[in-house]
Amino acid sequence: MNIILLEAGEVQENQVKLTDHRAAHIIKILKSQPGDSLRVGIIGGPQGTATVKNIDQRSVRLFVTLGGRPQRPQTDLLLALPRPIMLKRIFTQAAALGVGRIFLSNAARVEKSFFKASLLEESNTRGFLLKGLEQAVDTKVPKVRVFPRFKPFVEDYLTPKMAQYQSGFIAHPTAEANLWRQSQTPLNGRVLLAIGPEGGWQEYEIEKLMAAGLKPFSMGPRILKVDTAVIATLAQIDLLRQGGAPN
Amino acid sequence: MNIILLEAGEVQENQVKLTDHRAAHIIKILKSQPGDSLRVGIIGGPQGTATVKNIDQRSVRLFVTLGGRPQRPQTDLLLALPRPIMLKRIFTQAAALGVGRIFLSNAARVEKSFFKASLLEESNTRGFLLKGLEQAVDTKVPKVRVFPRFKPFVEDYLTPKMAQYQSGFIAHPTAEANLWRQSQTPLNGRVLLAIGPEGGWQEYEIEKLMAAGLKPFSMGPRILKVDTAVIATLAQIDLLRQGGAPN
Repeated sequence: MNIILLEAGEVQENQVKLTDHRAAHIIKILKSQPGDSLRVGIIGGPQGTATVKNIDQRSVRLFVTLGGRPQRPQTDLLLALPRPIMLKRIFTQAAALGVGRIFLSNAARVEKSFFKASLLEESNTRGFLLKGLEQAVDTKVPKVRVFPRFKPFVEDYLTPKMAQYQSGFIAHPTAEANLWRQSQTPLNGRVLLAIGPEGGWQEYEIEKLMAAGLKPFSMGPRILKVDTAVIATLAQIDLLRQGGAPN
Repeated sequence: MNIILLEAGEVQENQVKLTDHRAAHIIKILKSQPGDSLRVGIIGGPQGTATVKNIDQRSVRLFVTLGGRPQRPQTDLLLALPRPIMLKRIFTQAAALGVGRIFLSNAARVEKSFFKASLLEESNTRGFLLKGLEQAVDTKVPKVRVFPRFKPFVEDYLTPKMAQYQSGFIAHPTAEANLWRQSQTPLNGRVLLAIGPEGGWQEYEIEKLMAAGLKPFSMGPRILKVDTAVIATLAQIDLLRQGGAPN
């Protein structure tokens, strides 16, 4: 936990009293003392610093000073809905690496039962997303939307929405081009990255996504698990965004 | 399991009988029938195909035809020794993404007790590495070496060895340059990637690694866990290897 995340309603007159796992972290891991300074953020809002006012064995009172409001990350993720245990990891990892939105779609190789997972309820996704934000020092919770039918998702939702993206890519093992060739350098603006189910997208699905404006790319001959592929491709897009520009 | 890995000694007169978890995978997951073809490989050796000769509820007999011998991946990984539970994940992920060697070194922020972990014995590391190879379809087991003292490792082992590498990089959150700026494009030859402990390398350690020829780079402001950083930076190096070259 590299930032203490607070709900907007918790802070009153610049103060907040914590008694939950965040208090335990400050007391037991950080071993903070009165006067110490901590990095804090309002979930969905600005980041800032907090000074420890009081601390005992179970609770911490903080005085909070907030600063600038971070921007929502410019890369969005479209996933064929993974099995719940993998989706938990992906929520945390994607939030840590920085994504704006996560679209979870059906696909021919997605098991229908995955759509009944309680993990898909917003109250259950949030904890996994916050864990990634606490790691990476961010306050912007990725927005998650679930689409139980592939064709209406692509035709009615995604196709008009693609006008908002400068680039869209589909990870597809048998594609001829690599990401480098399909991308501009440096890569700018909003990017949508689509990653298929274990076993890959079917050709029909690739065609529909390509018709919506996404470009297929191959990561090479190695077959990666979906959660590994999510981290690897988000990192590559991040590198392409830096591409060649002085830093 | 996208390839069935066999020990060289298991195959006799082009045949092998399996009765362990590999047989269970072929019987229960792949649901193979006599005459079916499977992807196989000799650990450390060539890949090929196998034809199912006999199959019953517990065992599978394969007829094996071997082909070319794959090359050892050109990227090596130097890690400040992570805690055992994280190291297991990194072994599997690094083997899946493709690394030639894994050097595990001490650092000021490494807990000394980690060096006593039974995971560091070769008989225990191998299973986690093979899991990654089975996922990615590879037979070359990364070589693992453990160095319990940082200074002799860098001065006596790493410094002369760096002559074998075309490039070396250190992930370092406060570095001024990014990987793009520190790397040639396309990136060629053998590359050594160094990733520090949770909390990062100390300045003294960065200086020693720089003196050995490695260049520090920052991945940006987000703080990543070590296992996430390993996947992300290996993927970025892979992209830089493709850099700009026609594919």
